[in-house]
Amino acid sequence: MRKEKDYLGEVELPDNAFYGINSKRATENFPTTGEQFDEKFIWAYFMIKKAAAILNKELGYLPENIANAITQACDEWETLKKSIIVDPLSGGAGTAVNMNINEIIANRASQILGKELGSYFVNPFDHVNLHQSTNDTFPTAGKIAVILRLRELIQAVIKLQEIIQKKEKEYYTIRKVGRTQLMDGPPIMLGQEFGAWADALARDRWRLNKVEERIRSVNLGGTAIGTGVGAPKDYILKIVEITRQVTGVKIAKAENLIDMTQNLDVFSEIHGLLKSAAVNLYKISNDIRLLSSGPHTAIGELIPPPVQIGSSIMPGKINPVIPEYVMQLSHVVFGNDVIVTSACSLGNLELNQFVPIIVHYTLKSLYFLKNACDALTKYIDKIEVNHQKCEKNLESSFSNLTPLIKIFGYDIVSAAVKQAKWDIEKTLKILAKKSGISESELRKKLNVQKMTGLGFNL
Amino acid sequence: MRKEKDYLGEVELPDNAFYGINSKRATENFPTTGEQFDEKFIWAYFMIKKAAAILNKELGYLPENIANAITQACDEWETLKKSIIVDPLSGGAGTAVNMNINEIIANRASQILGKELGSYFVNPFDHVNLHQSTNDTFPTAGKIAVILRLRELIQAVIKLQEIIQKKEKEYYTIRKVGRTQLMDGPPIMLGQEFGAWADALARDRWRLNKVEERIRSVNLGGTAIGTGVGAPKDYILKIVEITRQVTGVKIAKAENLIDMTQNLDVFSEIHGLLKSAAVNLYKISNDIRLLSSGPHTAIGELIPPPVQIGSSIMPGKINPVIPEYVMQLSHVVFGNDVIVTSACSLGNLELNQFVPIIVHYTLKSLYFLKNACDALTKYIDKIEVNHQKCEKNLESSFSNLTPLIKIFGYDIVSAAVKQAKWDIEKTLKILAKKSGISESELRKKLNVQKMTGLGFNL
Amino acid sequence: MRKEKDYLGEVELPDNAFYGINSKRATENFPTTGEQFDEKFIWAYFMIKKAAAILNKELGYLPENIANAITQACDEWETLKKSIIVDPLSGGAGTAVNMNINEIIANRASQILGKELGSYFVNPFDHVNLHQSTNDTFPTAGKIAVILRLRELIQAVIKLQEIIQKKEKEYYTIRKVGRTQLMDGPPIMLGQEFGAWADALARDRWRLNKVEERIRSVNLGGTAIGTGVGAPKDYILKIVEITRQVTGVKIAKAENLIDMTQNLDVFSEIHGLLKSAAVNLYKISNDIRLLSSGPHTAIGELIPPPVQIGSSIMPGKINPVIPEYVMQLSHVVFGNDVIVTSACSLGNLELNQFVPIIVHYTLKSLYFLKNACDALTKYIDKIEVNHQKCEKNLESSFSNLTPLIKIFGYDIVSAAVKQAKWDIEKTLKILAKKSGISESELRKKLNVQKMTGLGFNL
Amino acid sequence: MRKEKDYLGEVELPDNAFYGINSKRATENFPTTGEQFDEKFIWAYFMIKKAAAILNKELGYLPENIANAITQACDEWETLKKSIIVDPLSGGAGTAVNMNINEIIANRASQILGKELGSYFVNPFDHVNLHQSTNDTFPTAGKIAVILRLRELIQAVIKLQEIIQKKEKEYYTIRKVGRTQLMDGPPIMLGQEFGAWADALARDRWRLNKVEERIRSVNLGGTAIGTGVGAPKDYILKIVEITRQVTGVKIAKAENLIDMTQNLDVFSEIHGLLKSAAVNLYKISNDIRLLSSGPHTAIGELIPPPVQIGSSIMPGKINPVIPEYVMQLSHVVFGNDVIVTSACSLGNLELNQFVPIIVHYTLKSLYFLKNACDALTKYIDKIEVNHQKCEKNLESSFSNLTPLIKIFGYDIVSAAVKQAKWDIEKTLKILAKKSGISESELRKKLNVQKMTGLGFNL
Repeated sequence: MRKEKDYLGEVELPDNAFYGINSKRATENFPTTGEQFDEKFIWAYFMIKKAAAILNKELGYLPENIANAITQACDEWETLKKSIIVDPLSGGAGTAVNMNINEIIANRASQILGKELGSYFVNPFDHVNLHQSTNDTFPTAGKIAVILRLRELIQAVIKLQEIIQKKEKEYYTIRKVGRTQLMDGPPIMLGQEFGAWADALARDRWRLNKVEERIRSVNLGGTAIGTGVGAPKDYILKIVEITRQVTGVKIAKAENLIDMTQNLDVFSEIHGLLKSAAVNLYKISNDIRLLSSGPHTAIGELIPPPVQIGSSIMPGKINPVIPEYVMQLSHVVFGNDVIVTSACSLGNLELNQFVPIIVHYTLKSLYFLKNACDALTKYIDKIEVNHQKCEKNLESSFSNLTPLIKIFGYDIVSAAVKQAKWDIEKTLKILAKKSGISESELRKKLNVQKMTGLGFNL
Repeated sequence: MRKEKDYLGEVELPDNAFYGINSKRATENFPTTGEQFDEKFIWAYFMIKKAAAILNKELGYLPENIANAITQACDEWETLKKSIIVDPLSGGAGTAVNMNINEIIANRASQILGKELGSYFVNPFDHVNLHQSTNDTFPTAGKIAVILRLRELIQAVIKLQEIIQKKEKEYYTIRKVGRTQLMDGPPIMLGQEFGAWADALARDRWRLNKVEERIRSVNLGGTAIGTGVGAPKDYILKIVEITRQVTGVKIAKAENLIDMTQNLDVFSEIHGLLKSAAVNLYKISNDIRLLSSGPHTAIGELIPPPVQIGSSIMPGKINPVIPEYVMQLSHVVFGNDVIVTSACSLGNLELNQFVPIIVHYTLKSLYFLKNACDALTKYIDKIEVNHQKCEKNLESSFSNLTPLIKIFGYDIVSAAVKQAKWDIEKTLKILAKKSGISESELRKKLNVQKMTGLGFNL
Repeated sequence: MRKEKDYLGEVELPDNAFYGINSKRATENFPTTGEQFDEKFIWAYFMIKKAAAILNKELGYLPENIANAITQACDEWETLKKSIIVDPLSGGAGTAVNMNINEIIANRASQILGKELGSYFVNPFDHVNLHQSTNDTFPTAGKIAVILRLRELIQAVIKLQEIIQKKEKEYYTIRKVGRTQLMDGPPIMLGQEFGAWADALARDRWRLNKVEERIRSVNLGGTAIGTGVGAPKDYILKIVEITRQVTGVKIAKAENLIDMTQNLDVFSEIHGLLKSAAVNLYKISNDIRLLSSGPHTAIGELIPPPVQIGSSIMPGKINPVIPEYVMQLSHVVFGNDVIVTSACSLGNLELNQFVPIIVHYTLKSLYFLKNACDALTKYIDKIEVNHQKCEKNLESSFSNLTPLIKIFGYDIVSAAVKQAKWDIEKTLKILAKKSGISESELRKKLNVQKMTGLGFNL
Repeated sequence: MRKEKDYLGEVELPDNAFYGINSKRATENFPTTGEQFDEKFIWAYFMIKKAAAILNKELGYLPENIANAITQACDEWETLKKSIIVDPLSGGAGTAVNMNINEIIANRASQILGKELGSYFVNPFDHVNLHQSTNDTFPTAGKIAVILRLRELIQAVIKLQEIIQKKEKEYYTIRKVGRTQLMDGPPIMLGQEFGAWADALARDRWRLNKVEERIRSVNLGGTAIGTGVGAPKDYILKIVEITRQVTGVKIAKAENLIDMTQNLDVFSEIHGLLKSAAVNLYKISNDIRLLSSGPHTAIGELIPPPVQIGSSIMPGKINPVIPEYVMQLSHVVFGNDVIVTSACSLGNLELNQFVPIIVHYTLKSLYFLKNACDALTKYIDKIEVNHQKCEKNLESSFSNLTPLIKIFGYDIVSAAVKQAKWDIEKTLKILAKKSGISESELRKKLNVQKMTGLGFNL
């Protein structure tokens, strides 16, 4: 065990630990929640450290050997990330993870330069964190990670939309009953139902694509409160550009670094859009669940893909487990939205102290939604149609009786339908008896085909 | 127009206005939201003023004539409430409405004593508000109103439960298919379905009954911060008792007036239980919606009462408008829960400044839920059963095939079911062909009756 | 009393009622919630009826006299709206209010043509509602109202931003202490604090401006499920254009009417942005509350405008009632967001049955936010600065000691600060004693001015 | 690699895998979310399997050797849990994890009996899952785990309350300024502030204690839909009792197994109470944050324990990181409440398909709250008081001027306070000048001591 010391006291650490005293303190302060950092966020944080080292070397603020060792350590992030021991939900606006990463890099860089762990030949504050603050690096790393996860999500939404559009074409001529308020309604094409889902997703694509430009404005260089205190001007002016080069993510320096440090409404905005994506995924999944319900004693127009056994009691039972999975993840996104919104609103003065949960739950929602899209895409691809059920349902829907309004008026047909308990044959009998027109004559008036074209008029 | 003045300046008022300068200022400060105070809340507030006047007279702090005039004015609350001009969502922890009521009573009491409006012969501060603060009267009025609304809600829940239990008995022998994850499942009695709803409501009754004792602890007498500053001890000791007599509501003096002034977690607790009531109302309504869906091309086992015409295009269309109404109000209660929870958590130090929205939205939820129960009670009473559909659905459910597992094993029956697309007849054909046992022989093994008794074993 | 009849039975109505049987049934089905329709929504609904009458006349579907009478009745909306008796939260996807308006117009138009109320010479279904459905008119009226309220909100945000920018300039040179996590931090200009708020609002302006183009896509002409069933093609093609002319609001026909009828994610999207506006309003108000807290025993750097008396016990107490009001309304918007989001996600198949609460709570949020902005604008205009407190706070903040790090190192200064309990004078004493450098010498190193410039480096 | 087969097809598995085909399918169906099962839940699930094996042996439904092997395997749960590969958020009402556990136990039990993995000598369906369904075992395991976590939470709340009460006594005589709406208010004792927090926690203790009896009613034995289909009566009657013995947790058989299978409002109820606990933790933490704010330029009456370094720029900066941590976890609990509430309301007919997220997020909230309490307890223990600041704040609060109302009247004192910008000395000067009474004479009237006793009257 080695000992490390600061002005608050002394702490014991394993000899081979890359992390240091501040990381250790954080694990003692904050009981572990079981939550994990998003890997993209960790990567982005190391890359910011790398960018700062490169720039500080370039501007003469860091000796070359130290800057190079830091750079090398940052590139080893994938191995070093195992030494991140602090909890993602730690208090302190992210200080815990910033210091954890500073200490890991400092120790590894010292090691690279032939020094001992804990020697801090490369210093976590004076070298690794030079001209930075948790308050500008943490939200910037968060935004870079959000952009990367956003791109993954957009790809997943596109694939989902494409599979639905494939089905839309395939089912274009399948006529079926429509339903409003879960009640039998006018006829519709199955392809039109898929088409409506696809067009809802088109809005999500548009929304998610647009939001990248909103999130890319960062406060890097602003240090503690956006005034850049502790950092020289030449560093402030260039650090975003260097970080952009290092990460390949097109972040931009915020016009007002002070505003961008304290106001996190952009996370609330982006999460609001994620919520809208969840709204559509929920609706689509629920519709699939309804359309494949039964299959015999409910709607049963779609055949649920048998992705797993549904019961140990009932033979052959297949449940809509993927729609349910998607709906569950959507619920989580709705819950996360409440977390992110409150947390964004409750920042105080020069800083939002809740940035750790804001970034964490935004990244979780992005990841969950991508998972939901992936699972749903595979599932929809395997959906089949129960043509027989579609036809039978369409035939038995009393909505077929609509053309009779022209003959008898709305009230008379309605009364007959009600008396017949929505049974077509019985209704025709009642009306025939009442009017003297024969049942077969009346049946000829029904024309479901015509009712699906745009603008069918009585 | 008359003029009134305080140390902030002068304000013009209509000559016949019972409200005064402070009320007027509030209307100028807070744009109207369109929200209305709950009448029970207003009543309770007037009654607290009355109780204070009675007690202050008794203890010699108020001249008899003034106290009596105040008392009389309070009894005229139903007429005077029209002079409440401030918005329920005003800032200031409720000061606006406290002052509005103080001014109304002061003016009316002055008038009773033969003085002019605006004379403040009876003074809103020195007489009507004597030994009180907004900070103890407002939450106390809120709690009294909550208790009254709670009792109404409990009655409404009881009526709803009773109507469901009536149906439970009526439908006790109606055998039908059960559904899990919206898929055909083992058989169940329709009465059992109603019984499950009734028992869920039994929990609501229990919960709502228990909560009254939680909310009845009040901080009246604690004045501004619970220390009773500005009020004499004899007043503090007796005011709750007098208010209890005046209102007939069994409130109790909080053991810790300071705690009860600043911590409003009890509202969060009670609203959490309202939320649970909404959960059950939502589930029941949604189930009714599902069971009456179609009626021909979906489940259709219940017949939706035709409470209004459902379509101007489709003859005889009846929609589940009451279940939808109940579900909508439940959604609102879920939203209100977020409002109340956040607001309860965000009080600061000696006071919760958000008490106006906490009380307002708790009362709204109580009222909405009562409405929801009332509407649903009337609706369920009129529900009818489509016996034919229940039978047909039950017969066509592949869950009938369960007993065949004993003969063929789970996998073979399942594979046949899947191949037959969940069609019973086709499945029997496949299995007959495979096994050599005749279809009719196999059909004899199916016994849906047995499957609804407790503990049917293969 | 007159009697009206439909196939469900007979209903009694006051002789002079403009509303009819369907409206009356709705009031019996749905207990009143106390909620009020937004006036813009009602206006928009009447205008859609007007547009339909004009177009139906033009295309020969309605006799001229009837169409003209309908048109005239629609123009009398402001008088007629008193006859809207149904509740905004009624179930049935909005049928209740559509029918209420149809009946009002039908009766008034009949009256215009010299016929009796209840005669239905002009018929609510066959004439007023011709070629329409609740399912296309209700959401379209909702979107038109949202656009109008949105424009009001944008104007209110602009005014708020302008007043803040005025203050930003005014306070540009006032140096003060910054705070992170509520703890003393590096210095900042008061103008910079106002500037950060103004720039947050700039994002709201941008967002709200952009969203109008998202909400303007409507499903009018799609009737029940977006296929236009019951309406002729020529009507479908022109109705949006005519409605645009009648309302002056630039709505556009949705490319996919079916999608636009069943998917309401756009409301979830727009409400997400309203939520972001509430986030910023909350943050700004809370900051003002903090900066004016005390005023003597907390931060007290701003002087809260005395808009109303704050206490009946403490002389001169002024509370931040307007920031509290804004925060309360923001809480409500957060709650509404939960309502709107859930309701949007829970539409089923061809229709979202919860469109009444979706539209209602979106309009409420828009209105509440406008109110919040208006109140805050007036309030901020009257804010004053306590210059003395700003200076004193700045001087006493231990952040001034930052430059000493260069001399002693971080740990030694920190330890001294801790020992001195963050007192500057005591810290200097400790350091002087330790180092031999005189206190006055050390004091010279402190330079708060330099620390507020961009990029102050130790 | 070994192969396993069901009627849906064939799947490849590692030779040494304890899990089987159903587990594998689930991992392919449901992309991993990164969430982990609560260990108590896994334990409870294994114990239910053990109880079922014991009872099935006792009743003669399972051969002794097989039942014993299952029992032994269940006792090895801690080792075997590594073979749980399915995601906690899987769709299918929990089927994935039930089957995962069934397969693990079946394979391990087979191995114990000398058979190969994958041989299913002990069968996951016919032996391990005998007379059970996911639908009764999953929620029962969930409730047992909730009870265990609840007890931990209660202990944590008790410890927190005790440490606060210790401080309450310690600080009983420290007089300080009270604050309402963040503005200087009447005086209070610091001990009273701690006492108010302690009493709020007392309500949490009471609530959490009471809820155990609410959650202990389970549907075990009800199998798929609560009718016990597939299970014999003697098993149904005894399984809860045996599980109680095996787990030591006092669960009770629900009176209505059908209700208890489909209605999960009890989770919504319990989570509502967790939310109330979060409300109090949030309030207390926020108050601590406020009281220790500054420390020099804000309130600064408490000294924040220096648990970690707060800044790399400002020497000696200490942030309230633990209150922030607690507030962050509380936010998460508020978000989880939305998840649990919606999911509870959205069950359909005989089952709530969302039980996986309901149980998962309830357990997370319990665990997070316990963590929050633990962290806060340690933190509060280390809090110190800045006596000097308490005194200075109290002296400078204009609330001291309250007794002067008796002499001059409310308006005159208020006007003077306002003119003096809340400065006591200046106010006295103004009043002295105005009245001729000397400043020192006036100062004698001020008596802060008297104002903290219960019922101070002017």
